[in-house]
Amino acid sequence: MDTKVKIDTLRKLMKDRGWDAAVISGGDPHSDEYVPERWQARKWLSGFTGSAGDIVVTYGHAGLWTDGRYFIQASKELEGSGIEIHKTRIPGAIGIPEWLGMEASKKPGFKIGIDGLTVNSHDALEIIKNISPHGGSIDDAPDFITEIWHDRPEYPQAGAGILADKYAGRTRSEKLSWLRGKISEAGCGAMLLSSLDEIAWLLNIRGGDIAYNPLLLSYMVVTENRCMLFTESCKFSGNDLETLCKDGIEILPYDSIDHEIVLRAKEGGKMLIDGQTLNYHLYGNILQSFGHERVCDSLSPVPLEKAVKNKTEIKGMKKAALMDGIALTKFFIWLNGQMKLVKKGKTLISEADAAEKLNELRKSTGALDESFATISAYGKNAALPHYSAIKGKCSYLEPKGLYLVDSGGQYPYGTTDITRTIPLGPTSKREKRDYTLVLKGMISLALSVFPHGTAGTNIDALARNPLWQHRLDFGHGTGHGVGHRLCVHEGPQAIRHNWIDCPILPGMITSDEPGLYIEGEYGIRHENLLLCKEAGKNSCGEWLCFETVTYTYIDTSSVHKSLLSKDEIKWLNRYNSMVYSKLHSFLDKDERKWLEKRCRPI
Amino acid sequence: MDTKVKIDTLRKLMKDRGWDAAVISGGDPHSDEYVPERWQARKWLSGFTGSAGDIVVTYGHAGLWTDGRYFIQASKELEGSGIEIHKTRIPGAIGIPEWLGMEASKKPGFKIGIDGLTVNSHDALEIIKNISPHGGSIDDAPDFITEIWHDRPEYPQAGAGILADKYAGRTRSEKLSWLRGKISEAGCGAMLLSSLDEIAWLLNIRGGDIAYNPLLLSYMVVTENRCMLFTESCKFSGNDLETLCKDGIEILPYDSIDHEIVLRAKEGGKMLIDGQTLNYHLYGNILQSFGHERVCDSLSPVPLEKAVKNKTEIKGMKKAALMDGIALTKFFIWLNGQMKLVKKGKTLISEADAAEKLNELRKSTGALDESFATISAYGKNAALPHYSAIKGKCSYLEPKGLYLVDSGGQYPYGTTDITRTIPLGPTSKREKRDYTLVLKGMISLALSVFPHGTAGTNIDALARNPLWQHRLDFGHGTGHGVGHRLCVHEGPQAIRHNWIDCPILPGMITSDEPGLYIEGEYGIRHENLLLCKEAGKNSCGEWLCFETVTYTYIDTSSVHKSLLSKDEIKWLNRYNSMVYSKLHSFLDKDERKWLEKRCRPI
Repeated sequence: MDTKVKIDTLRKLMKDRGWDAAVISGGDPHSDEYVPERWQARKWLSGFTGSAGDIVVTYGHAGLWTDGRYFIQASKELEGSGIEIHKTRIPGAIGIPEWLGMEASKKPGFKIGIDGLTVNSHDALEIIKNISPHGGSIDDAPDFITEIWHDRPEYPQAGAGILADKYAGRTRSEKLSWLRGKISEAGCGAMLLSSLDEIAWLLNIRGGDIAYNPLLLSYMVVTENRCMLFTESCKFSGNDLETLCKDGIEILPYDSIDHEIVLRAKEGGKMLIDGQTLNYHLYGNILQSFGHERVCDSLSPVPLEKAVKNKTEIKGMKKAALMDGIALTKFFIWLNGQMKLVKKGKTLISEADAAEKLNELRKSTGALDESFATISAYGKNAALPHYSAIKGKCSYLEPKGLYLVDSGGQYPYGTTDITRTIPLGPTSKREKRDYTLVLKGMISLALSVFPHGTAGTNIDALARNPLWQHRLDFGHGTGHGVGHRLCVHEGPQAIRHNWIDCPILPGMITSDEPGLYIEGEYGIRHENLLLCKEAGKNSCGEWLCFETVTYTYIDTSSVHKSLLSKDEIKWLNRYNSMVYSKLHSFLDKDERKWLEKRCRPI
Repeated sequence: MDTKVKIDTLRKLMKDRGWDAAVISGGDPHSDEYVPERWQARKWLSGFTGSAGDIVVTYGHAGLWTDGRYFIQASKELEGSGIEIHKTRIPGAIGIPEWLGMEASKKPGFKIGIDGLTVNSHDALEIIKNISPHGGSIDDAPDFITEIWHDRPEYPQAGAGILADKYAGRTRSEKLSWLRGKISEAGCGAMLLSSLDEIAWLLNIRGGDIAYNPLLLSYMVVTENRCMLFTESCKFSGNDLETLCKDGIEILPYDSIDHEIVLRAKEGGKMLIDGQTLNYHLYGNILQSFGHERVCDSLSPVPLEKAVKNKTEIKGMKKAALMDGIALTKFFIWLNGQMKLVKKGKTLISEADAAEKLNELRKSTGALDESFATISAYGKNAALPHYSAIKGKCSYLEPKGLYLVDSGGQYPYGTTDITRTIPLGPTSKREKRDYTLVLKGMISLALSVFPHGTAGTNIDALARNPLWQHRLDFGHGTGHGVGHRLCVHEGPQAIRHNWIDCPILPGMITSDEPGLYIEGEYGIRHENLLLCKEAGKNSCGEWLCFETVTYTYIDTSSVHKSLLSKDEIKWLNRYNSMVYSKLHSFLDKDERKWLEKRCRPI
């Protein structure tokens, strides 16, 4: 079926159901960053492969709403499909709720079909807010797309297992007891959890249902004396099931969550939910079963508790960084050797080859998986915000200019995320200046000391200021939280220009990754992970600082030394020296010599 | 009457009116920073002279709610009064709304008497939110305090006048036409304004009803074709009345605003108000007269428009800074001479004497008034957050250590605010270090370049970072907006650690005033005003920067040069050189020589 036929089929379904419009979102029931194939209805319907966007179809119009990252890609992929692009995040943009509001104003009793499992409740309520003044309404139809998407993939079926206490540092019983305290503080008798990483962290379980993120497709309900995990028990081994059972975890079928909500409601008490992440279908069920007065919609306390790593988790994250450092060092040595061959015309190395090699080396140091798809970008490709090197279609590395590699690993004991920008040969004066300015920003944040209560937004400018002084900037956040053997992107803290209402707390691990992207020329990003630590107390307050927990040398051959302050030079030399002392015993003689040279003070 | 007797009298009044509690706020009907005597009921009732706090009296309790600035002062002033202190802005603090909520839960039909003129609507609604679930209610009783405060002062009666277009740069007709556009955009037929500085700015009028702030006690209603100013017409000269009349400004009695709201409501259309500043009495009247559906409670557009100065206003602000520079230079020369005499034991100079001298010199350069009460603080007094030197009770200056003077003037064409910290003789190593760190912070902000859309909160850390690196900080904002021949503190922009949702825009003038306060030892603050300007456009965005618009030398004798970067030294030398070149022609030969020496590069 081509897109036009699919849309016609969808319109027939709409007609049968009495809908004036249908929303096809790109989301899954758990607000995952990486959406399993089963829920990629947007891609199936339209052919658009971007990671953000929603489709609305009426009888007279079909539109894809997406943001600036995808304007060019979408216009290529949607050519001839009859789907029009609606640009979001631009001045004067009209979002889906407003657009549907206008449509609803034209026809009394306007009815919109939505798969409530694939839209979070806050987004659905925004639509309702816009259509209800005109008498419009939403019809929640879970999985309606299955009627027309005949070869729709099944639920992900990966196995799952227990994360040992020696890695988790805190037992599931301890975590559940903490959560029960929070549920009771909120005056509730139960809590429904639907965020997969919250569930995985609370129960010390890890799965493989989501790409890169070691998560298990599930819901969870916690009451004063019960803990129900809604998933398929066959995903676990018998031993793991026994362990979970001993800890009082009941496993119920994934699909029985709706029924359980109805049962819960009959038992009395209030239900705690987080409408920011909960899908609209379950939200609707809860509201109907419990009634407005018995639902407490509040920010889940789990993300903050999860973001503050315990000692064992920190130890694991540091060990992962060490293993990563070994893999990356070996990678850069390999790359260096390959570039010599390239120079002699004896081989060709593509961006995808390099990524593959790095992945291989990382696995040989114990990584179970990548923590996200490696960005391996040479020259002007590194200036593209979402570059992905595809074998056979990507660039070959040449012995000149800058190569950017942003990658990370999932180790049994922790998760990494690191970016290095490496000269493959001579670099221009401007490349050197920019390389140094970005480095200044990264170091400035790493060196920062700040009072308790400081949010990431408060210190974001420290990383940007060296660039700003040259009227340069980068269009992404400076830092995101990193999970422990979990999602490489996690909240609630972030270091960003827009306001993030969460302080940076001791134990949090956040990335420090300023960059600079010169279109058509080159891209630079330096990224380390920062562990927030206490830094003393005095009459001015309680102080916090960062410890860098990434152990991979920073290339100094492109550093423009006079642009660095004395403190920045000291930091850089100490950092590289620390890296050498941590890694050298894991390297052979030649590798050691190679690294020693690169870690020499400037 | 002593406080106890006054409270007994109040309780009698409460009984007569059937109230269970009465709230005595410290506010006036216009949310003014400096409250006229007529509305200082809190001071009259309790004897507490602080600038922040509210009193609640029930039959069993009398309490003053105030914050950390006043805990010590309040406990002294309230001794023996029977009024207890409730601490606010501390962890676990119970505010007035919550406290009244608890009281209301104990008695059905709990009734609270409030002078709605003295409480802004948002605060009153917060109380209602807390008491209404228990069946409690508010009784709005305007001016009820007059019944027991027999010698209550009258309304302020100062004269008012027109600010000439040559100073305002934009006529009142232009401003009103702009405002009418905004009212219409909001779908309203009229707007009620109650903020005195919004009214003064819109109509290009200035008054003298409020200390330091050249404002006129008034309300204002703007409709599509009428502009009504509610004040006493006898405050204006005949000429000014004629001018206002020609521009279509109708003057009605201050007290007739209530009646006018009722008339307005009968004419139909919606009313635009800003509940953040509007008092609860008028808010209640509007709600009753218009009905909920016909009231649009929204942030007033005036403060932002007012904060962005036009070319004429900027010219005036710069001229004021120049005159201020002359006054301050003469002041520091005088101080220098006096300290020589002090050293020889030939004279004594108190902090109050110094403030008086500065005020005198400022008047001789054309200032009409101070823009706030000068802070003249020597040695350890400068470490007190709200120090006020009282003649006969304050310290004498000695020829050693640091003297801090924070002051400003109201000139016909502009308003100033400046702080200098000056060594009166030898200073310690630590004083020099701290003097330099604070200076680094001030310079760092002055040198900042940032993209369009940046809020003050985003760049606040640039001023704090040099201190933070030494685990030092200051407990106040880094910068506030400054009005043009208006309030020295104005919004909506601010440079603060907490989030302020307003970008710094070209034309805004904001203070840059980091500080450091070492209790019992010394205090340091450096303050200049910064004009935000455009700084070019490129592929990374539209850039903004600051121009310093304060022209008074910065003493370099206490600078620890090696703590400053090359760029900071360059800024300092250029700044002092610029100050000299601007001021020298206004000084006599000796003064010039004195200043030239102090402006020499380091």
